[in-house]
Amino acid sequence: QPKKNKQWRKCLYTIWEMKYSQDTKRVIHSIKVGIALVFVSLLYLLDPLFKEVGENAMWAIMTVVVVFEFYAGATLSKGINRGVGTILGGSLGCLAAILADDSGYIVKAMIVAVSVFGFGSLATYMRTIPSIKKKYDYGVMIFILTFNLVVVSGLRADTVLQLARQRLSTIGMGFAVCIFISLLIFPIWASDELHNNTSSKFDKLACSIEGCLDEYFGTMGRDKENQGKVNLSGCKSLLYSKSTDESLANFAKWEPWHGKFGIKYPWGKYLEIGEILRELGTLILSLNGCITSSRQPSQESRQSIKDSCELIGLSLAWMLRKLGESILKMRKSRTKVLLSPKLKSLKQDLGLLHNIKPQENEDSVAV
Amino acid sequence: QPKKNKQWRKCLYTIWEMKYSQDTKRVIHSIKVGIALVFVSLLYLLDPLFKEVGENAMWAIMTVVVVFEFYAGATLSKGINRGVGTILGGSLGCLAAILADDSGYIVKAMIVAVSVFGFGSLATYMRTIPSIKKKYDYGVMIFILTFNLVVVSGLRADTVLQLARQRLSTIGMGFAVCIFISLLIFPIWASDELHNNTSSKFDKLACSIEGCLDEYFGTMGRDKENQGKVNLSGCKSLLYSKSTDESLANFAKWEPWHGKFGIKYPWGKYLEIGEILRELGTLILSLNGCITSSRQPSQESRQSIKDSCELIGLSLAWMLRKLGESILKMRKSRTKVLLSPKLKSLKQDLGLLHNIKPQENEDSVAV
Repeated sequence: QPKKNKQWRKCLYTIWEMKYSQDTKRVIHSIKVGIALVFVSLLYLLDPLFKEVGENAMWAIMTVVVVFEFYAGATLSKGINRGVGTILGGSLGCLAAILADDSGYIVKAMIVAVSVFGFGSLATYMRTIPSIKKKYDYGVMIFILTFNLVVVSGLRADTVLQLARQRLSTIGMGFAVCIFISLLIFPIWASDELHNNTSSKFDKLACSIEGCLDEYFGTMGRDKENQGKVNLSGCKSLLYSKSTDESLANFAKWEPWHGKFGIKYPWGKYLEIGEILRELGTLILSLNGCITSSRQPSQESRQSIKDSCELIGLSLAWMLRKLGESILKMRKSRTKVLLSPKLKSLKQDLGLLHNIKPQENEDSVAV
Repeated sequence: QPKKNKQWRKCLYTIWEMKYSQDTKRVIHSIKVGIALVFVSLLYLLDPLFKEVGENAMWAIMTVVVVFEFYAGATLSKGINRGVGTILGGSLGCLAAILADDSGYIVKAMIVAVSVFGFGSLATYMRTIPSIKKKYDYGVMIFILTFNLVVVSGLRADTVLQLARQRLSTIGMGFAVCIFISLLIFPIWASDELHNNTSSKFDKLACSIEGCLDEYFGTMGRDKENQGKVNLSGCKSLLYSKSTDESLANFAKWEPWHGKFGIKYPWGKYLEIGEILRELGTLILSLNGCITSSRQPSQESRQSIKDSCELIGLSLAWMLRKLGESILKMRKSRTKVLLSPKLKSLKQDLGLLHNIKPQENEDSVAV
């Protein structure tokens, strides 16, 4: 009993710790954004700087507000997207503006309208393609915006090239401020997040398995009312973690070498592990469906399988925790040595269980 | 056999039809964005309009590029977010600028810097709160942007109020163009998408169940190589549909009365149905895990349960299809009358099965 209590406290502690560190990170992120905003505002506040850039300082502020994201990798990816989109859109826009420049006003307007429609529609269609949407959505949007602004300004201003150059340089300033503050001052890495998340998933699964065991064998004396209250929120949150994982891996790829992660770090593996753990989560959820269903074996038969089931479940939980730990600490896991005999004995127990009490799992078909 | 073929063709047809209609929608959306861009570019192209708005026409273009989203509800929600964010940020910024106006330059600069840092950090922290992030993320971002631009321009320009008014009116023009084109010309409703998605989920589950049956009883003669190839992609995609559903429901709430949906339409119910269907999907996935595991009963015992299992599975699939259909057509389902006796007989069959062949489901514990 004290051992079990300790395990539960450990589960709760892990969750609390994650939430707490997440809160701290959010406060740090907010303060960093505030600092970055003050920095770019200096372009307006200090006379010599304002004389240099003028009203274009606006673009630096805009860049900081829009580009500064929670994770360093996200900031970097958005900034580079913005930069490339601006350059591509700006140069294409200049080209179209120059092309239209020699013609009469009506022809000019026609060329502008057609190119705005053509590039706008084409780029928007590209934004709806999932693979582009996932990585370059923001860049394509900025491409449309810049192309449009440049090509229509080209009709009015004679100094399109100069305008584009000035804006680009202020956007560059904003980006530099973002990158500096995001990467160098208390950086919040998506790679750390993905790494810790993946390791904590093993913990969550272990907690869920223990919860199921506790529910099934711990409540045997209690009445029906108190049953069916296994805390599976961890297991469920894991099930829905696919999109979070994918975006984290996407950001992690952008992040430069830091800490324990090398340059060609295999982020794809984390996604594969996540996929497998989600399948495990599915199994645990359906196991929970079985043990909380209305068709249950008698108290006696439950009692008779209690020990073997608890042995199996707790060993499974132990193994999951070990695996999670070895991922977290990036140690080559000695699981093969440690687990092999354990797994074998488990398999035997399982076989034994099957022969003695096949009824236990009847309910799984009661979809 | 011909009946089964027909069912499979139906499954494939449904998927193809959805993909095709999705592609058409994407093309329509792209063309609509192109048209909207040409419309706001007219602010530059036509002399009388340009004389009216001047360089502020830029903000109309920016609004269209940024606000025009795939779904009408998304466009509306983003536009309103942008509007409210601009107004709030603009007025607070004016207030701060006026407050700073009476002081000397150094004090002025201090007030601006402190307010930029304070509001920037505070609003950024709000953006990291999940409930605000889900609905108002864009609005808060625009608030930060506008507040900053107004408060720093206030240092330089004497005409902050006029500047703010002009920008707001051009943003309004861009928004009007977006809303007009998004809502009135071939609108793409998030509500339709959510409605059809929810109904098609029933189909996907039915297809998966049929696939499992086919796999388990259809391949009995075949070798091991050809086994374990049930197409469960539909079932899996359903499992990961939570975030899509939530954002669709969020957009659907913004969409005005149209078609078959009333004003206070209960979009939350769709999310509840989705949740239940995901749980069903979990069960089907784990059932598939059982039937593809290496521990299998003998051919004979499989043969002996074939008929009852197929009856149950096909009835389940039929029921799911009926339910999906009645949701799609918004008919009050007569399922209670139709299904009640069916369910009862199913339950009996299931009980029978349990007593005869408990071995079949042994493998569910072989996590």
